[in-house]
Amino acid sequence: MEFPSKIVEEAVIQFAKLPGIGKKTALRMVLHLLKQDKVPVEQLTHSLLKLKTDLKFCSECHNISDSELCNICADKNRNHDVICVVEDLRDVMAIENTSQYRGVYHVLGGLISPVDGIGPDDIRILPLYERIERSNANEIIFALAATMEGDTTAFYISKKLKGTIKVTAISRGIAIGGELEYADEITLGRSILGRIPYKI
Amino acid sequence: MEFPSKIVEEAVIQFAKLPGIGKKTALRMVLHLLKQDKVPVEQLTHSLLKLKTDLKFCSECHNISDSELCNICADKNRNHDVICVVEDLRDVMAIENTSQYRGVYHVLGGLISPVDGIGPDDIRILPLYERIERSNANEIIFALAATMEGDTTAFYISKKLKGTIKVTAISRGIAIGGELEYADEITLGRSILGRIPYKI
Repeated sequence: MEFPSKIVEEAVIQFAKLPGIGKKTALRMVLHLLKQDKVPVEQLTHSLLKLKTDLKFCSECHNISDSELCNICADKNRNHDVICVVEDLRDVMAIENTSQYRGVYHVLGGLISPVDGIGPDDIRILPLYERIERSNANEIIFALAATMEGDTTAFYISKKLKGTIKVTAISRGIAIGGELEYADEITLGRSILGRIPYKI
Repeated sequence: MEFPSKIVEEAVIQFAKLPGIGKKTALRMVLHLLKQDKVPVEQLTHSLLKLKTDLKFCSECHNISDSELCNICADKNRNHDVICVVEDLRDVMAIENTSQYRGVYHVLGGLISPVDGIGPDDIRILPLYERIERSNANEIIFALAATMEGDTTAFYISKKLKGTIKVTAISRGIAIGGELEYADEITLGRSILGRIPYKI
């Protein structure tokens, strides 16, 4: 693509660095901003800069938070004895949306991934150990992605915790409402191996 | 969606105002920026603000430009007697990419759209008339979208220019390499009505 203006080109390049944004989409976004007044553009840039300057992380669960302690960790009505280990903010939001979980969280901020050069020390595993030691927690639940990285991370953490605390993981299997014939073989195979007692 | 932080929520809302960006994509973009250092985020915001502060428009064709006169209008080797009328920057880039056009452009900056409250005075039609009057232009080519808005705009402009200058429009029809059976009826119908002499 050849641009008539270096300024437009630079803005397109910057937008195209965002995940899932190609050059054509980036150009569409830039043209949209060009048609706007100065104020909405300043609002956008202001709120992006605030991400870097004003954002705090909860000192307990390491989730993004506006205060020293996030709303979930500060909530006395929640069960602080159960800690759900997740990768990031989105997982917390997804689980909270189910309204089925009343425990607290621990946000790792990533998964162990040797391919990407992310080791155990690059994510918040040590703070999890420390937290379990100083708290009354009696169960940790792994709610990590069903990928090589998620499995590796869960395995690494659980090895160290073996015998000290109850360790569980969210169940895997055929989705509710899912047809067996459309499920992939690995999921279906695992759900047969991991069969559970039928409750009447 | 319930966010654990107002700052994240605000950034997601601002991103989601961009065209084609939903809340989930916006959140993904925000989480991406969170993982970045401060510098790339500042580069992004800086280049967006520059769009509003440093950008100029070519005084001749009204295309976005870094200088008073854009590269195309300043090019003495181009044919300044033929003016191609387009909606915006993207159309100029698309036509330039074909390497088939050696004339100059006029960027309207929009199309007449009564539904959206955009009238003839909201886009750069008057500057086009003035430009045709003071220049030696002998042909204008409409290269506008084949939509109600594009047709309305071309009709409005051509009415006033009738008899003063040669007015043409880019050809419409079945795309090169296109199969007849997959073409929509309107395109196919119009391409039959608008048939041209067959050249051997």
